[in-house]
Amino acid sequence: MLESINKPYLMFLGDAPDQLAAKTAAGVAHWCPQDCLGQLRLTGCQADLGLPDLSMATAVAQGAQTLIVGVANRGGRFSELWIDTLCDALQAGLDIASGLHNRLKAIPRLAETAERCGRRLIDVRHPVGEFDVGTGRKRTGKRLLTVGTDCSAGKMYTSLALAQEMQQRHLAATFRATGQTGIFIVGSGVSVDAVVADFISGAVEELSPDNDAEHWDLIEGQGSLFHPSFAGVSLGLLHGAQPDALVLCHEPTRSHMRGLPEYPIPDLAACIAANEAAAHLTNPAARVIGIAINTAALDAAAAQTLLTETGARFGLPCVDPVRTGVAPLVDVLW
Amino acid sequence: MLESINKPYLMFLGDAPDQLAAKTAAGVAHWCPQDCLGQLRLTGCQADLGLPDLSMATAVAQGAQTLIVGVANRGGRFSELWIDTLCDALQAGLDIASGLHNRLKAIPRLAETAERCGRRLIDVRHPVGEFDVGTGRKRTGKRLLTVGTDCSAGKMYTSLALAQEMQQRHLAATFRATGQTGIFIVGSGVSVDAVVADFISGAVEELSPDNDAEHWDLIEGQGSLFHPSFAGVSLGLLHGAQPDALVLCHEPTRSHMRGLPEYPIPDLAACIAANEAAAHLTNPAARVIGIAINTAALDAAAAQTLLTETGARFGLPCVDPVRTGVAPLVDVLW
Repeated sequence: MLESINKPYLMFLGDAPDQLAAKTAAGVAHWCPQDCLGQLRLTGCQADLGLPDLSMATAVAQGAQTLIVGVANRGGRFSELWIDTLCDALQAGLDIASGLHNRLKAIPRLAETAERCGRRLIDVRHPVGEFDVGTGRKRTGKRLLTVGTDCSAGKMYTSLALAQEMQQRHLAATFRATGQTGIFIVGSGVSVDAVVADFISGAVEELSPDNDAEHWDLIEGQGSLFHPSFAGVSLGLLHGAQPDALVLCHEPTRSHMRGLPEYPIPDLAACIAANEAAAHLTNPAARVIGIAINTAALDAAAAQTLLTETGARFGLPCVDPVRTGVAPLVDVLW
Repeated sequence: MLESINKPYLMFLGDAPDQLAAKTAAGVAHWCPQDCLGQLRLTGCQADLGLPDLSMATAVAQGAQTLIVGVANRGGRFSELWIDTLCDALQAGLDIASGLHNRLKAIPRLAETAERCGRRLIDVRHPVGEFDVGTGRKRTGKRLLTVGTDCSAGKMYTSLALAQEMQQRHLAATFRATGQTGIFIVGSGVSVDAVVADFISGAVEELSPDNDAEHWDLIEGQGSLFHPSFAGVSLGLLHGAQPDALVLCHEPTRSHMRGLPEYPIPDLAACIAANEAAAHLTNPAARVIGIAINTAALDAAAAQTLLTETGARFGLPCVDPVRTGVAPLVDVLW
């Protein structure tokens, strides 16, 4: 069952020790500022989204529906310090949505308060209810999936940028979220790496159902077929998405797979070949239509050289979604 | 955390409408008859394992430790008719282990009775506790994984036959169970298709830890890289197993992938190539060392022809574990 979160949001940053700890919240504030009324910070918080600091009462008065816990302390776990504030939020009439590994619902005070106040606790890392097993049945509409040489290579950003570019051209396009930040941004989705293994492809089939023939789903990829920890998630997602088009996302300065110093980053050509071969099981027409490189660590000249050379090597449009935008990728879809 | 089930067993067949409904129990009775003291059947049961029919009291007097629920009624769900008997088992001093989709622990009467009697309810389809994320770190010892052209192609049977053949030759070998029947047979293992997707390969790394240099783990495969519903499980299992050797299992009379009439069975050559390519991520030395074909549906002459021709086509030993045994596969491992 897909998560659904009511907007607008009050962004809770807790006592985040630095800006990085509020990475999820920052992603949400970047992609849907219109849905983020303000931020709520505890004493000692070192993160700042650049949003108004709102009291609970003010946020509720302005129409806030959900408090988003978009912050991680050490270990991605829950801080005892937060619980009073979260209970206040429930009593003030807000739902709470969290992307942390431990569950809001497992904290008795929160569970009791939510029950009493008739509010929802939404743990996006713990999908509720049951999915069906994937069927591989061909669905109507068009789909694009971002895939990566590694984790954290820009797949969510690229998918959102593609959806935005298409919508600006008045093309029918929907971003489909498969991770916590994406789910907060659009208010629904499924955290595919948290689904029971038997149901990975089935969950993605439910996430991206039949649609109009010319409608594009932009599906957020996860992991990499070349990451020894997570490739099973990536393959189930690839089969369930049955993409018509793939965009390969890459971070060029990384020396090894995220978290695994012994595993080198795969070659782009091998990555394209492996993803296309696997995708053909559920969509024989699937092909990589472009490459998105995160060049943030390079200067402008080096970035442009890399994009040009990579594009020429594969005969595909090659962009940096931040530096150049994704228009050349959308151009080749029509 | 791996399941661990105490032996010997009393096999519970409930009111199974036919022999097929007791398929799991029959597999256990076939592979570890010495651990199955007897069977317990309710009125109307149409299945028979050929074991003595024992009362609860007699089974306990003979030393039974666990009642195995190795039977499925329609939908793989729990029958209300069974609950009195299961409560009796707990009160008589037995643990209960079940491979059904719905949980023993979710039935209040059973949960309360188990708590009161100090007995365990073991739901092997619902792994308890937490696994670590896979690391891809090379482990000591040797590993063989069975893979398939499809689900239900003989992977568990082949793995068990290999373990038995090796043990008869006094080679160090351990069967590692990844599904419910295998877990009942050896009393431990992990139901990998029931693990949260992020932890598939990590669970298999825990299942098959470092071992002596000459020791073989025979790891039971699941699904198929070519099954649109389950390939994610198969890939995570392949990466976590980091097998030195693969055996491809195949059922030659099937016209399409199990449950999916639109998906043809993949060609054996494609299946070998895809499994070897994917396995090389965590073990560059991985290779398919033989083929196991379930020829039960063929007559003896046709079976022999198929095994001979398939073996010649790939230059690999090709066996039917039931008709011919697996000795030729073990021969090539030394």
